[in-house]
Amino acid sequence: MLGKIGLEEHFAIAETLGDSEKFHPPGVWPALSRNLLDLMEIRLREMDENGMDMMILSLNSPAIQMIYEPQKAVEIAKKANDEMAEAVARNPKRFRGFAALPMQDPDAAIMEMHRAVKDLGCVGVLVNGYSQIGSPEKYVYLDDPMYRPFWAELEKLDVPFYNHPREPMPCNDKQIEGHPWLAGAAWTFGVETAVHTLRLMCSGLFDEFPKLKYILGHLGETLPFCIWRTQNRIEKEARGVPAKRPLPEYMAKNMWLTTSGQFRTAALLNTMMEFGSDRILFATDFPFEEVKDACDWFDACSVSDNDRLKIGRENSVNLFKLTGL
Amino acid sequence: MLGKIGLEEHFAIAETLGDSEKFHPPGVWPALSRNLLDLMEIRLREMDENGMDMMILSLNSPAIQMIYEPQKAVEIAKKANDEMAEAVARNPKRFRGFAALPMQDPDAAIMEMHRAVKDLGCVGVLVNGYSQIGSPEKYVYLDDPMYRPFWAELEKLDVPFYNHPREPMPCNDKQIEGHPWLAGAAWTFGVETAVHTLRLMCSGLFDEFPKLKYILGHLGETLPFCIWRTQNRIEKEARGVPAKRPLPEYMAKNMWLTTSGQFRTAALLNTMMEFGSDRILFATDFPFEEVKDACDWFDACSVSDNDRLKIGRENSVNLFKLTGL
Repeated sequence: MLGKIGLEEHFAIAETLGDSEKFHPPGVWPALSRNLLDLMEIRLREMDENGMDMMILSLNSPAIQMIYEPQKAVEIAKKANDEMAEAVARNPKRFRGFAALPMQDPDAAIMEMHRAVKDLGCVGVLVNGYSQIGSPEKYVYLDDPMYRPFWAELEKLDVPFYNHPREPMPCNDKQIEGHPWLAGAAWTFGVETAVHTLRLMCSGLFDEFPKLKYILGHLGETLPFCIWRTQNRIEKEARGVPAKRPLPEYMAKNMWLTTSGQFRTAALLNTMMEFGSDRILFATDFPFEEVKDACDWFDACSVSDNDRLKIGRENSVNLFKLTGL
Repeated sequence: MLGKIGLEEHFAIAETLGDSEKFHPPGVWPALSRNLLDLMEIRLREMDENGMDMMILSLNSPAIQMIYEPQKAVEIAKKANDEMAEAVARNPKRFRGFAALPMQDPDAAIMEMHRAVKDLGCVGVLVNGYSQIGSPEKYVYLDDPMYRPFWAELEKLDVPFYNHPREPMPCNDKQIEGHPWLAGAAWTFGVETAVHTLRLMCSGLFDEFPKLKYILGHLGETLPFCIWRTQNRIEKEARGVPAKRPLPEYMAKNMWLTTSGQFRTAALLNTMMEFGSDRILFATDFPFEEVKDACDWFDACSVSDNDRLKIGRENSVNLFKLTGL
């Protein structure tokens, strides 16, 4: 029997570890940092204890995306991908990887993507939202025209792209002023990644590259709940959006949604009602979430006998289909 | 048979009409502005044609909340409430109202709330998010300590408070730069109102005033989808949030959610699975949405025979229970 495969499971290297620290209070950091750096014992034990056959590894956030010197971003991305590849080589039956990419230099990102997929065996790429480029104050979203060649290469290479959360630009901080508990995964990460995804859809990206495979975590960062309304208002307000098709069509055709950090049946059902269980991929968000919490919920979760709403074994098969794992 | 009651149905007075114009392209504005100003023929015809017995009227957005001179805010709020009361008096079987409030001056807001409820017969109040106070650049959210006496009075008066969307502060604009179609109801309104509601819950407001009745439009501005995750992360990150209870408990106990602008069954089901159909209130968001679209969807929508998930006649009865209409 095929066990579960966890898609969004993070690690860190020495150079990127500190990036995750600011989102967590000192009390929880020792355990988190230890788990982020471990690519062996702790991780395998967690998996064994909870019926997770395989983890798809990816770097922590924002990591590469905040290294504003392009050359350094390239160097650290390579190092992270190499370390990940070594972990996969040590346990090829238990680990695979989604590559980190130095989006500060689109040509270098293309080269590193090729190297990671073809030489290192990565089954996808994971980018932490916008990149800071040249200076910490210059933020570039992935709908910027300079990334069109990257998306063209990604489509040709036919591997999935995971748009993973990072913190919004500092100009957005006033909205949660006085409420530090809303920073990060509790709230602002999801908004940032949702709006980034809306930018990509609205820009016409998926018209230009209709075969892109795009993954969102956290059951789609609220988009399954509200994309009908967003589309309805965009149509009614008729402001000349470049996208040629209704946004829910791109979500149905180009997107896959993972359960990372969203172990909630009502939200899962909403997502499956919109896009079908074929588009649901299992994920934990380890070590920020517990493998046990994700697995206990997922194993017990039974929402329907209907084919379109089935979950369980199928959601790991989905990942095989998506990545050619 | 009891027909539908639409809870979030807007009008404008001459002084506030222009506030809605910037969120809509010139092509749709003539019809919208005509419908906003009409408190008679157009509205009643829409209602008659679609089985809507009653509309609960409320002012457009941001209206009072953007009038940064407190004295002027008081004056315009009174005028709007008076004009609304006249419309209700002309058609008492078809209209009721939620009062606009000049939150720029909390004492004046309390006085106007009393006048609106006791003298004018308003069945609730509706505020468009944060207020600009003293200058256009000073934005004050409703979790500010200066509003605690207002919330105390609201609880005593036992009428519901509708937190209605407005645009985020300008400092947030960069997140959608180059994508004007994401401004307003398509995206940024909902984020703004969701985060405002999170601020209120996190501040301990509902611990201090446990009987507050708080309404959100658009099926809860994505919160039913993601509140489990927000709570999960707030707990895990342990940053000392003042709220004494888990946020989903406040939502279940203090909140009601309307269908305004969210005519989507999967999202409705998610919301009902979390909070029960008792907390769903029917609403259109007229004239920004069509009464026909809301009613056709709602009348056809059948999600379950289970009591907790029933919709239809019950959702208008809910409003009677909530407002003592």
